[in-house]
Amino acid sequence: MHLNLSTNQAKIEVMTDIDFKSYLETRQARIDAAMDRYLPREDTYPVSLSKAMRYSAFSGGKRLRPILCIASFECCGGAGDGVLPIACAIELIHTYSLIHDDLPCMDNDDLRRGKPTSHKVFGEAVAVLAGDALLSFAVELVLAEGGKSLGSGLAVRILTDLVRAAGPAGMVAGQVVDIESEGKEAEPETVKYIHTRKTGALVASSARCGAMAAGAIDSVVDRLSTYGTKVGLAFQIVDDILDVEGSFGKLKSDSRLDQKKRKATYPTAFGLEEAKAAAAKLACEAKDALADLGETAAPLRLLADLVVNRSF
Amino acid sequence: MHLNLSTNQAKIEVMTDIDFKSYLETRQARIDAAMDRYLPREDTYPVSLSKAMRYSAFSGGKRLRPILCIASFECCGGAGDGVLPIACAIELIHTYSLIHDDLPCMDNDDLRRGKPTSHKVFGEAVAVLAGDALLSFAVELVLAEGGKSLGSGLAVRILTDLVRAAGPAGMVAGQVVDIESEGKEAEPETVKYIHTRKTGALVASSARCGAMAAGAIDSVVDRLSTYGTKVGLAFQIVDDILDVEGSFGKLKSDSRLDQKKRKATYPTAFGLEEAKAAAAKLACEAKDALADLGETAAPLRLLADLVVNRSF
Repeated sequence: MHLNLSTNQAKIEVMTDIDFKSYLETRQARIDAAMDRYLPREDTYPVSLSKAMRYSAFSGGKRLRPILCIASFECCGGAGDGVLPIACAIELIHTYSLIHDDLPCMDNDDLRRGKPTSHKVFGEAVAVLAGDALLSFAVELVLAEGGKSLGSGLAVRILTDLVRAAGPAGMVAGQVVDIESEGKEAEPETVKYIHTRKTGALVASSARCGAMAAGAIDSVVDRLSTYGTKVGLAFQIVDDILDVEGSFGKLKSDSRLDQKKRKATYPTAFGLEEAKAAAAKLACEAKDALADLGETAAPLRLLADLVVNRSF
Repeated sequence: MHLNLSTNQAKIEVMTDIDFKSYLETRQARIDAAMDRYLPREDTYPVSLSKAMRYSAFSGGKRLRPILCIASFECCGGAGDGVLPIACAIELIHTYSLIHDDLPCMDNDDLRRGKPTSHKVFGEAVAVLAGDALLSFAVELVLAEGGKSLGSGLAVRILTDLVRAAGPAGMVAGQVVDIESEGKEAEPETVKYIHTRKTGALVASSARCGAMAAGAIDSVVDRLSTYGTKVGLAFQIVDDILDVEGSFGKLKSDSRLDQKKRKATYPTAFGLEEAKAAAAKLACEAKDALADLGETAAPLRLLADLVVNRSF
């Protein structure tokens, strides 16, 4: 079956595994190519900063968030490359957060996705600054390139959503509570708080921003928001489960690091079986939120399944 | 003489020292009150993050950048509180950069303005995250509150300028080169590079953004940009001079810290006398840029003098 979402959505009736694999690959490639165009070249002075920004941006990320953003955009009738600055900005914000999370004063990780973390390669100072630079750069990307492709009204709406998700009421708050819960017996409510903010907020925003970029009406944006919130939480729960079950060698640097540090995890707070049931339920609810969006939502449904059924 | 810049600019003919002192105080008070309104309350969960954001935002900063922004706004015919979200966002971006600069992996400062630095009070992890949060929050402030008071077109233009000044081609680049020049004999060109970016970029942007917020035409924004660039560089040169001459107890935590670390400074690269001459020349050039802006530019002229003649 020929997949051509962006130019003729009516063609999609059933999406096979092969279609979906190719769907993910083509979108990953578009995201990678766009990031390569946007980011400062590696020889831009100061070279250590440009290299550090690129090193983490191209360190094997699965591009879940930007793919979600693009899938949401296309689900809502968007077509073409106008959404790419938004999708890339989301990935750069995610990248900045990983660089800072890995720092010795945070999770102290030497490896991520099997490669040395930013501070191991460039030193702590440049790692902190590369994270800072990526956040500023992501904002500039939405305003400049996003403003050009989508108009400044949409760029403002999208950027407001993104920085709220990333800031002191979202991702950063989740990371603070995560750090402060380390080594303690975290309450179930605390684990939920951490997950919905540290991972969930930016994932939900990715889905919303794609819909907004396509000019979706508020009620549709709300559906995508519900979908993204459920998928984001499911993603983190599955991450925790994979940590416990030890089958995360491909994704995680150190197999039981979060366990070793006694991080607040879903299986610890709720039990392994309940955690698995919760993830499956969230994926169903995520798909339910898309019920009346028809076949253009097929990739989003498959993404929800992928998040829960992955073994990496 | 009664000073009432915001409601009747024609009234200002001569600004005495007393007028200027009161000018600075009233604007500091407006900025502090607005920051207090905007920032998350201290009891907002997670409390450590909210406290850390506020601790550094209210740690005795002179508010040079936001005052420059307001003075530039008023110089260009702006009136009222519409510029306050922009002025406060600038100060929060400055605050985030200080928190990160003070980290053990950067300048490793235990004190700033006589008070323990963020990481000494809240720990390194929360300090990094408070800086991250302030940057995201500043962006949100410009979009949400600035968008409301100035319209989204101006908010976008201003925010684009600000994040360019703060990001990998501005402030962050300056900090990277500063860190990498430590302990080396820095070339005069390198010192200039560091100063124009690490300090100069955000100061120049402050002056530009104030003018933009007032709806100034491009040629006037350009004048304010020249003014801000000169003042920003002069500010940093004077900082270096005060470090050498040891009369900076009020401003710096550790009197000869930059010297001790063999930081790239203007007096080291150019000699003390040449540094002093350069600062004085820059202040003159800054004022020259305002030549045809009349008496509404009086506070900006006095600010240029203050930057060069300060002993703190």
